[in-house]
Amino acid sequence: MCRFLAYRGDPVYVADLVCAPKHSLVHQSLHAEEAKTETNGDGFGIGWYGERPEPGLYREIRPAWSDENLASLAEQVRSRLFFAHVRASTGTATTRANCHPFKQGRHLFMHNGQIGGYARIRRKLDALIPDDLFEARQGNTDSEAIFLLALANGLAEEPLAAMARTLAIVRAATRSADVDEPLRFTAAYTDGESLVAYRWACDDRPPSLYWRESATGLLVVSEPIDAEREGWREMPRGCTLIARPGRPVEISCLNAAMAKAA
Amino acid sequence: MCRFLAYRGDPVYVADLVCAPKHSLVHQSLHAEEAKTETNGDGFGIGWYGERPEPGLYREIRPAWSDENLASLAEQVRSRLFFAHVRASTGTATTRANCHPFKQGRHLFMHNGQIGGYARIRRKLDALIPDDLFEARQGNTDSEAIFLLALANGLAEEPLAAMARTLAIVRAATRSADVDEPLRFTAAYTDGESLVAYRWACDDRPPSLYWRESATGLLVVSEPIDAEREGWREMPRGCTLIARPGRPVEISCLNAAMAKAA
Amino acid sequence: MCRFLAYRGDPVYVADLVCAPKHSLVHQSLHAEEAKTETNGDGFGIGWYGERPEPGLYREIRPAWSDENLASLAEQVRSRLFFAHVRASTGTATTRANCHPFKQGRHLFMHNGQIGGYARIRRKLDALIPDDLFEARQGNTDSEAIFLLALANGLAEEPLAAMARTLAIVRAATRSADVDEPLRFTAAYTDGESLVAYRWACDDRPPSLYWRESATGLLVVSEPIDAEREGWREMPRGCTLIARPGRPVEISCLNAAMAKAA
Amino acid sequence: MCRFLAYRGDPVYVADLVCAPKHSLVHQSLHAEEAKTETNGDGFGIGWYGERPEPGLYREIRPAWSDENLASLAEQVRSRLFFAHVRASTGTATTRANCHPFKQGRHLFMHNGQIGGYARIRRKLDALIPDDLFEARQGNTDSEAIFLLALANGLAEEPLAAMARTLAIVRAATRSADVDEPLRFTAAYTDGESLVAYRWACDDRPPSLYWRESATGLLVVSEPIDAEREGWREMPRGCTLIARPGRPVEISCLNAAMAKAA
Repeated sequence: MCRFLAYRGDPVYVADLVCAPKHSLVHQSLHAEEAKTETNGDGFGIGWYGERPEPGLYREIRPAWSDENLASLAEQVRSRLFFAHVRASTGTATTRANCHPFKQGRHLFMHNGQIGGYARIRRKLDALIPDDLFEARQGNTDSEAIFLLALANGLAEEPLAAMARTLAIVRAATRSADVDEPLRFTAAYTDGESLVAYRWACDDRPPSLYWRESATGLLVVSEPIDAEREGWREMPRGCTLIARPGRPVEISCLNAAMAKAA
Repeated sequence: MCRFLAYRGDPVYVADLVCAPKHSLVHQSLHAEEAKTETNGDGFGIGWYGERPEPGLYREIRPAWSDENLASLAEQVRSRLFFAHVRASTGTATTRANCHPFKQGRHLFMHNGQIGGYARIRRKLDALIPDDLFEARQGNTDSEAIFLLALANGLAEEPLAAMARTLAIVRAATRSADVDEPLRFTAAYTDGESLVAYRWACDDRPPSLYWRESATGLLVVSEPIDAEREGWREMPRGCTLIARPGRPVEISCLNAAMAKAA
Repeated sequence: MCRFLAYRGDPVYVADLVCAPKHSLVHQSLHAEEAKTETNGDGFGIGWYGERPEPGLYREIRPAWSDENLASLAEQVRSRLFFAHVRASTGTATTRANCHPFKQGRHLFMHNGQIGGYARIRRKLDALIPDDLFEARQGNTDSEAIFLLALANGLAEEPLAAMARTLAIVRAATRSADVDEPLRFTAAYTDGESLVAYRWACDDRPPSLYWRESATGLLVVSEPIDAEREGWREMPRGCTLIARPGRPVEISCLNAAMAKAA
Repeated sequence: MCRFLAYRGDPVYVADLVCAPKHSLVHQSLHAEEAKTETNGDGFGIGWYGERPEPGLYREIRPAWSDENLASLAEQVRSRLFFAHVRASTGTATTRANCHPFKQGRHLFMHNGQIGGYARIRRKLDALIPDDLFEARQGNTDSEAIFLLALANGLAEEPLAAMARTLAIVRAATRSADVDEPLRFTAAYTDGESLVAYRWACDDRPPSLYWRESATGLLVVSEPIDAEREGWREMPRGCTLIARPGRPVEISCLNAAMAKAA
């Protein structure tokens, strides 16, 4: 499992959310509270939007808690939209290319969860990714495969429907491979403008997800980064949060979209 | 391109061949003479047979020339059969999983060369690897794909014919994808007993390969590791060297085997 | 804090003690039970004696739990005497040179604990190390300084008295610098023949230490590596264990030796 | 030896100077032309001033030529003042803490050269650094020692005189230790406003240094980054360049300042 944080709003320093809070993501790399694994030390990454249309990306195989570069970068980078992720591997190697977030052009994606039985359907999923996107595959995680597949399914245009289609495809693949292990999927996606978050599982145990909105910005996190519990709302299971520029946050039913996709 | 060394014979310290000689492999990581690239600093690896049927493996993303662990390990490990490789990436990321040699059970493989246009046929080759071997794929190099494909084609039983079949398959795939870039393949393989080396290219420029045999052992190298040029024999293009336990070294024609395989 | 393991006896594979047991050192890198910090993910190291007088050394900045090289090396290396250590930094950077064990010629040393207020006496301690040993200083930990200082004080000849002198010197330095934080020192040392372990603190809280002896070997560990609690003996506080070749294990009073040294 | 680049002027993307030019610093990491060593693959670093008074710092032990993070960061970071350095170690370990530039508060420093016989005077130099600065010492290079010593000697206030004093001290130390190897010092320093560069050696072979000034900015480099040779001026030996905000570049004689300091 993993822990992540996504922010969209007035520009803030990455450190103010990722490093400084009492239960910051960096702190969660050593002491997560609501995750299957307390330690998320198998690499980490941040992706942020600055002055360019494409985001910057810094991913490393060291634990986040001891990385001097992350500390310095987070102090310097001020961004209106960024993703941060600390990784607990579910089997694939600790390489930069397997660290989240994943970047494809102006898009970022990160994931917390697991495709049960991924090894048995890995090639099948790869075969569904169009050539131009497949050439961009750098690592070998299930998460990167889902991202590229979702992009192929129209993620940029219809983030809810495209992810519903993608999960339905993955689910069908695991079923036909007689996989028993569950498919669990808590994730975040952005095209550089909208922020989208998903919380879904084929059983009733999707990884935790919370969000908090204020006049200045929206925060989506695996677990609250501070003790001010009142502001945090738990994301309902089987739902998708979509925050488009200049519009209120929408919560939609992902289960329904999947039923429609199937 | 890359540089490599393979040894089979009376047990010797790895350092005696990999670190100590004037033009050792470690020296070649900084100053190769017969390679397309002088610097081979994109990771390295050693694989060696000790007391276990399966070989040990140490692969790192740092340049070989500055790795204290390699220096210490090579001082300690004494082996009757080992592979060493310094890497110059032809496009894939610098990760341990992309460093040579590759290990599968008791088998080791390393490669110097390139599948031209690999990005366009990568998925096609992956699809040809049987499930059980594909699950062992850890990185995303062309070299690892060839190794797994060759194992599927019978590498352990018929090292010459199986590699001929494999190269014919790869060649057919690049042709049907209208690839212009050449397929170049200088490589070494062992099952823990026999040592096999290949030198082949679809054009007339396979990467360099030399061998030297003495009463105590056989050495196969990308380029001579010392100035005693008399002992070294250049491996003919389009050929395979097979050194089976207790039998003299055989040089066979790989081109002929490929013609037969096609 | 950190966790460590030392073994002397009939040659065994490192993996059998460091990786395989239920509560192995690799397991302790993620889930230590008796340490101040549960996670020991700031690098690790192993040092082992093989066919050479000097030991081999493999130290890495990644967490032990995800290092493929450690897993492979521990499978291959069979040794009559080896040290293994997983690190939780007390302030110094995560570099190989700061990872334990430290090697000087044929000597190995590793430490679990901390010199309170080290930053304030670091240069003073450095100044006490003779030139030839100081040139060997590679990192900047308190642990390496103690090791070199102890060698200068006669560690190889009188492991008890020399360490008593060294700790007395360090203690005097911290006192004269008005340091409040405690000096805690649980450590192991070997010259390639004898195995020595220390457990001492200026307060009553030295890091934990256990040992187990059998007909085939002696094991000294930060915490038991398996549930067979009967075999394990807790090392008394303020004591030193000395296991010389062909002689029974001796437990001596370090406190008394320090009183004498002062 | 090493190669470096410093820029001060209108904000530009780091990539435009460090990655994109034909003979960029990243290119020099693999193919330097005017350095003792062609390959500068023992780590690298960038330091840049953004919206904070203190600079950001990204240092890594991999070669610059294959670091994806550097490529992404350099694309994103736009800065009015930055340093970049690719390292060829002269003996100390490849750790982040030994990579340039070094940062102390709002100050940055980087060095190309070597204190001959450094091992013999290392502790003597360390002893001259005041406690508060010594606590900031993270690595163990000669370069970091010179930087801290120069700060202690008033680098921030009098960059020419302070460095002259510092070099005179180092020179005296090597002399009294009967060191034969030369002291060579080409370096750059900034307090976040002024840019200072030095080129000096005790023999007549200081490492190369060039500068180019335009209406939009000042560039100081180990070797020209493009073929437009007309714009580049070679820095005279034994001189210091000082570029203060809003004032023309001054070239002063460091030799004279040293004579005065002695």
